[in-house]
Amino acid sequence: MRDCPRLFIAPETIAPMARDAMLDLEAGQAHYLGTVLRRQVGAEVALFNVRDGEWHGVIDHLRRDRCRIQLVGQTRAPVATRGVCLLFAPLKRDATETVIRMGTELGVTRFRPVASERTNTHRINTVRLESIAVEAAEQCERLDVPGIDPLADLPMVLSRWPDDVSLFAALERSNAPAAPVVARSGDCVLIGPEGGFSPREHDMLRARSFVRPLSLGDLVLRADTAAAAALALVGAGLKAL
Amino acid sequence: MRDCPRLFIAPETIAPMARDAMLDLEAGQAHYLGTVLRRQVGAEVALFNVRDGEWHGVIDHLRRDRCRIQLVGQTRAPVATRGVCLLFAPLKRDATETVIRMGTELGVTRFRPVASERTNTHRINTVRLESIAVEAAEQCERLDVPGIDPLADLPMVLSRWPDDVSLFAALERSNAPAAPVVARSGDCVLIGPEGGFSPREHDMLRARSFVRPLSLGDLVLRADTAAAAALALVGAGLKAL
Repeated sequence: MRDCPRLFIAPETIAPMARDAMLDLEAGQAHYLGTVLRRQVGAEVALFNVRDGEWHGVIDHLRRDRCRIQLVGQTRAPVATRGVCLLFAPLKRDATETVIRMGTELGVTRFRPVASERTNTHRINTVRLESIAVEAAEQCERLDVPGIDPLADLPMVLSRWPDDVSLFAALERSNAPAAPVVARSGDCVLIGPEGGFSPREHDMLRARSFVRPLSLGDLVLRADTAAAAALALVGAGLKAL
Repeated sequence: MRDCPRLFIAPETIAPMARDAMLDLEAGQAHYLGTVLRRQVGAEVALFNVRDGEWHGVIDHLRRDRCRIQLVGQTRAPVATRGVCLLFAPLKRDATETVIRMGTELGVTRFRPVASERTNTHRINTVRLESIAVEAAEQCERLDVPGIDPLADLPMVLSRWPDDVSLFAALERSNAPAAPVVARSGDCVLIGPEGGFSPREHDMLRARSFVRPLSLGDLVLRADTAAAAALALVGAGLKAL
């Protein structure tokens, strides 16, 4: 199946997938299959979302920006990713995109951009970030695509936090233990902006009982590196349960 | 010190750093301080390498591509990073650069590019990768800069492997335990190419007693994500000792 294109189909745009049903792709996906990948009628594709699981289909009709797929059979039952939410301060464009891509591969279930004192970018191109999450989900063989929330203020988010959800906060050069981490599905990871959290934010975070400081070592990591490293540690902690 | 530029000085190019000694920067560093950062005579800089540690200095003379620094005092004693080597299959340019940058931040002591069966890039721009490693070391506040070896063949590397060094191999969808990892300084991490290792390489790796399979979860990670995740897990395993 390595050479079989794998496309995300938003469940709200189609009826539940069923054997022999016909499914019309979006114009962009039709263009991708026909013009970019040069597939033809009869070629195989995989289609997925969290409601229908993954289905095997065959191109029934393909012409420029139109493509119709005949669904052949289900190859994977629906299952949601066991993962964590990622709260992160928006970064420069490239770095934010790396966070979304790597985060999706590392099992993030939801991205929650938060504005902290040293956050210097408050613009989030949600449409572009969603398309990066879709592409990463297609490549990493997830069945679900993580959603991306609008930007929220960090203090506001913390003030409404549910007490039974852990927030693993990557605090620079904290003396927190690096491992092992024990996490539950639904817990969250928090990564600060370039330049880190302010002293006031550090105090605010440490004062909350649900915040669990996470050490990422002695070096000063850039935010995208910190996100990947923290997600790997917390992800391993999830698996360990 | 956040606003103080931090520059790597290759130890073989200068006499050991000493109080009040004068030190001439390279033309590129002089340009960076004067033209990019717009520093002037009297401004502070930090200079470092693994032999001299980190020193505090002051710009004594600055003109276009020439800069002389007066060394004021040592701010950190020399200490080598406790870390691991990273063996990785060369990737597309951007992805290789991400591996070098994130790997340097995550404590890689030496990068060893290896050619595997599915490696589709055999060109390594060592000079460019070294400059990325220097820049990452300057930013993440390391004292040493990881070296970058020439490309070597994976089977050759494995055939000459010292038995007392563990090689943590990120094998896709292996059932290896994710955590906790126990690692020692000097151990190595191995990341495959896009498309993973071939079945023959999998067998070759599993047959070696020094290879320790490392699980990075159920999803298919891109190689740069896999490198960051594996280094985070093994780095946490180092710290745990």
